[in-house]
Amino acid sequence: MQLAIETSGLVSSVALLHEGVLRSELTIQARLTHSEQLMPHIADMLVKAGVTKQQIDSVSVSIGPGSFTGLRIGLATAKGLAFAWRVPLVGIETPVGLAWNFVGVGDLICPLIDAQKGNVYVSLYRWRRDTLEVVQDTYIAPVTEVLRSLRQRGEPTVFCGDGLRLAMPYLAADPLFRIAPATMAIPRAGSTALAAAQRLENNDTDDCMRLTPAYKRRSEAEVLWEKRHGGKA
Amino acid sequence: MQLAIETSGLVSSVALLHEGVLRSELTIQARLTHSEQLMPHIADMLVKAGVTKQQIDSVSVSIGPGSFTGLRIGLATAKGLAFAWRVPLVGIETPVGLAWNFVGVGDLICPLIDAQKGNVYVSLYRWRRDTLEVVQDTYIAPVTEVLRSLRQRGEPTVFCGDGLRLAMPYLAADPLFRIAPATMAIPRAGSTALAAAQRLENNDTDDCMRLTPAYKRRSEAEVLWEKRHGGKA
Repeated sequence: MQLAIETSGLVSSVALLHEGVLRSELTIQARLTHSEQLMPHIADMLVKAGVTKQQIDSVSVSIGPGSFTGLRIGLATAKGLAFAWRVPLVGIETPVGLAWNFVGVGDLICPLIDAQKGNVYVSLYRWRRDTLEVVQDTYIAPVTEVLRSLRQRGEPTVFCGDGLRLAMPYLAADPLFRIAPATMAIPRAGSTALAAAQRLENNDTDDCMRLTPAYKRRSEAEVLWEKRHGGKA
Repeated sequence: MQLAIETSGLVSSVALLHEGVLRSELTIQARLTHSEQLMPHIADMLVKAGVTKQQIDSVSVSIGPGSFTGLRIGLATAKGLAFAWRVPLVGIETPVGLAWNFVGVGDLICPLIDAQKGNVYVSLYRWRRDTLEVVQDTYIAPVTEVLRSLRQRGEPTVFCGDGLRLAMPYLAADPLFRIAPATMAIPRAGSTALAAAQRLENNDTDDCMRLTPAYKRRSEAEVLWEKRHGGKA
């Protein structure tokens, strides 16, 4: 039984997946702090699903990019549980998890993750039936630039992720662009679990001592420290 | 804020949708009884999402076909809440709710719902980008017959619903057929809410006193009663 954790942004989501069956998912978007919610949500979901801790044989976690605090809490919790239970740990990049909300969708899939100051982390994926193809690895760019380049590309594209908010004013006008429905627009632990299941099948797991968030860039605090002290924090 | 309830089968799922945002979804597949789970799940989700009963302005519910008991509990609860809170009620056919798991998917969507004795309730849908097209209204047939007719149709088809179990032995062999991933294969209240949102926009709601399950056929007990007593129960 896989336990999956997704706290890379404002959404708190946990799920249990077992032998191709989604046993449970609890997804809450309530602007509450993950530090207070995450462990109670996991404990509560286990009780509701009638699953014991002993049944968990892997932990997967969304590793970003995303909110620094959310990622740290998610990773710390996932690592703690995987270490304590002696089960494999799998980190899934947040945009890959988002792409798994869209299995079989024909459009180009474009997860946008808010990177502050009008920038987004952008990636592009395409489903070839059951197979996920990475069309463009994650990079950071101003949202207006991202949309300009997608307009030039000229393919029907569906947008998701918390960066959607920044793109929204520009999307409605273009018939090429589609906004994901509410159920698919947010990162969900069920999808994290699906992505992780594929890696687990290949015994492709991460090192519990070494897995780090895919921040893609340093925190403001780190940049400031370096500026002040002339070296890496 | 919409409250959605899906208990048409073994899955117990409740969700809150508000202005295009999925505020929460709790989905549990644990072979427990809906009668014991449903109200506590709703109450618990409201607390976790920080939503008060006063904020709920509509109730939607999956109306089947599906399990007689599950449907009765779901509908009774939805009607009770809608009546008590004086908010509109919207019934969504279970296969339509399932189709909303697949927004934007290119394949023909085929929800299968177990109708016992090797039969399934089968329906066919297709997404034209954001618009759901009913290709074939729900009917009941032996699963082998359904697959034969879909093979003749010759279109890539994705299967979901609890009738999937019956079709599974025949699906793997055919490259036209695809089994939905675990997150999309089961009915989910988030999708019920999306389908209901569209009806609510058009002020298309159901009568709290008259909404009945879309059983599509009578219960065994009713058939038996009629046989014994020579009239409708």
